[in-house]
Amino acid sequence: MNDLILRSIRGEKIDRFPVWLMRQAGRYMPQYRELREKERDFVSFYKNVDLSVKASLLPLELLEVDALIIFSDILVPLEPMGVEVRFEEGEGPKLYWDGNFKSLKRISYEDTSFVLEIIRGVKASQSEVPVIGFCGGPFTLLSYMLDGSPHKGLRNTKLCLWSGECKQALGLLVENLVEYVKGQILAGVDLIQVFDSWVLHLSYEDFEDYANVYLKDFIKSIKEFNVPVIYFFRGSGSFLKALKDLPADCISVDWTVDIVESMEVYSHAFQGNLDPYVLYADLETIRRKTLDLLRCIPRKTRYVFNLGHGLMPDMELEKVKYLVQVVKSYRIA
Amino acid sequence: MNDLILRSIRGEKIDRFPVWLMRQAGRYMPQYRELREKERDFVSFYKNVDLSVKASLLPLELLEVDALIIFSDILVPLEPMGVEVRFEEGEGPKLYWDGNFKSLKRISYEDTSFVLEIIRGVKASQSEVPVIGFCGGPFTLLSYMLDGSPHKGLRNTKLCLWSGECKQALGLLVENLVEYVKGQILAGVDLIQVFDSWVLHLSYEDFEDYANVYLKDFIKSIKEFNVPVIYFFRGSGSFLKALKDLPADCISVDWTVDIVESMEVYSHAFQGNLDPYVLYADLETIRRKTLDLLRCIPRKTRYVFNLGHGLMPDMELEKVKYLVQVVKSYRIA
Repeated sequence: MNDLILRSIRGEKIDRFPVWLMRQAGRYMPQYRELREKERDFVSFYKNVDLSVKASLLPLELLEVDALIIFSDILVPLEPMGVEVRFEEGEGPKLYWDGNFKSLKRISYEDTSFVLEIIRGVKASQSEVPVIGFCGGPFTLLSYMLDGSPHKGLRNTKLCLWSGECKQALGLLVENLVEYVKGQILAGVDLIQVFDSWVLHLSYEDFEDYANVYLKDFIKSIKEFNVPVIYFFRGSGSFLKALKDLPADCISVDWTVDIVESMEVYSHAFQGNLDPYVLYADLETIRRKTLDLLRCIPRKTRYVFNLGHGLMPDMELEKVKYLVQVVKSYRIA
Repeated sequence: MNDLILRSIRGEKIDRFPVWLMRQAGRYMPQYRELREKERDFVSFYKNVDLSVKASLLPLELLEVDALIIFSDILVPLEPMGVEVRFEEGEGPKLYWDGNFKSLKRISYEDTSFVLEIIRGVKASQSEVPVIGFCGGPFTLLSYMLDGSPHKGLRNTKLCLWSGECKQALGLLVENLVEYVKGQILAGVDLIQVFDSWVLHLSYEDFEDYANVYLKDFIKSIKEFNVPVIYFFRGSGSFLKALKDLPADCISVDWTVDIVESMEVYSHAFQGNLDPYVLYADLETIRRKTLDLLRCIPRKTRYVFNLGHGLMPDMELEKVKYLVQVVKSYRIA
């Protein structure tokens, strides 16, 4: 197995940086769109084990990346908690629940057995590269439940946090996410990535008080399963300094961070940092901006190439392929 | 004159922190909406000297703030440059120009004489508090010209920056903004605030290369007019560390910054930091979050209370008034 990503995160000697991309199996790929058409709605699609396994595998053949991530959605563990998730055509998710935290349920990883089957399917179909399992961060899932979409700046979530009424729900989310991740690890994933996109909207103080406290508990618990953990968050430039003691193995940052300085100060492995919009530019710019980043990485290991956020539906497959090849051709001196 | 804001920025001894609010004359105020109804479109409104003077003055009587800001729009200096600005009902601005940087014109402050008349009008109508003039940051104005709205993450602006084709336009914007600010100062404003909201979307590296370089030039030039300069920007948590040498007197930060640590490291005065969404909460929360911030300010001077961004149209006047009173009642020990 090409275990470059595991070796890089552990700090072992490598001759090039590993690469995978967030949302690497996604709408920008004609082959994904073809699979996606086989189910009418997105929830049915991510619950369809056969189609989700096929989607997960696409980037291996098409992009030749160094890791696969299972095809799924961060909202999956909310459903057995009592939150119904629906995706309307061309829109984001809509969440339906009674708004009463007391009615939220403890879950078992068997409640989302389709996720375990997808993992087993991806592992059985290939042994070339490691497989990444994932979940949302406790804060990000809470904000989906309370605000549905971040476009209004998470007004409901903030009011709930400030009222002091969210603590139990965040505690329950941590417990349930630990169980959910445990199932993924038992099913065979080689790494876990936690996606915490929406902390971006918080103040520095609220990030500390309402996101970081639960996050540290959560990451500490899932680290006990002995699989490397990557923590991805938006607002990296603001909140990175609060994460110095985060027990994750790798911190995945957006493009607002001065990664050179950060990698000199932190003991974690780092992932990401390239502005995804570079993929809207011409090949020459893609090459230049990517090499500029790789050349400035101050370490010869403990870095995983990725974008600062996920690929967008209107990006071009050929440019994404080119980006991966640029990273793979860069030799660590 | 109540010159508390000037004294606080200079670092003189004060017994309470000064307060004003970005967008303090705005749609959340019934009295503003009444004035606004007298002109059909927003451009006609901000060009109407009598109405804009009246709008500028509203917060003095209604909120009892320590400074007034002239009612205007950051897009004003673009019009004499050759960029037509229109506001459609209930939408953001739309900009019309030929897209050719070479056709952009040098301006004289006399091209926007209505702004000078508004300043003279506000100064003549009251001498109780200082009057703040303002303009957009060079980068933020360029992004309006190229993307119109930040909702798509400034795709066009970034592609233009990376192509190297924006340099002259940024240079011209700096020259024109210096002239525009000079006019405001000659007309009598007591301070200048530069609004650079859209740098938020840049990578750390791009902020350095494409925003900060021009910004430093610009602030240095306007500092020569001997009026205190406040620099406001979003993405404060990410980019503050690039601004250590910024020749502004005061840095106005959003809520992503750890202001306690920042004020210990920087020699500038600071402004802002409170998450504006606190104003959607109940009075008790408004009071608690505001006092939490004021109590943690590590200096006894060189701070100006403000929100981390502007007031929103759906905020309540009574809560805004309450916020101002909470700040004014806090005594510096």
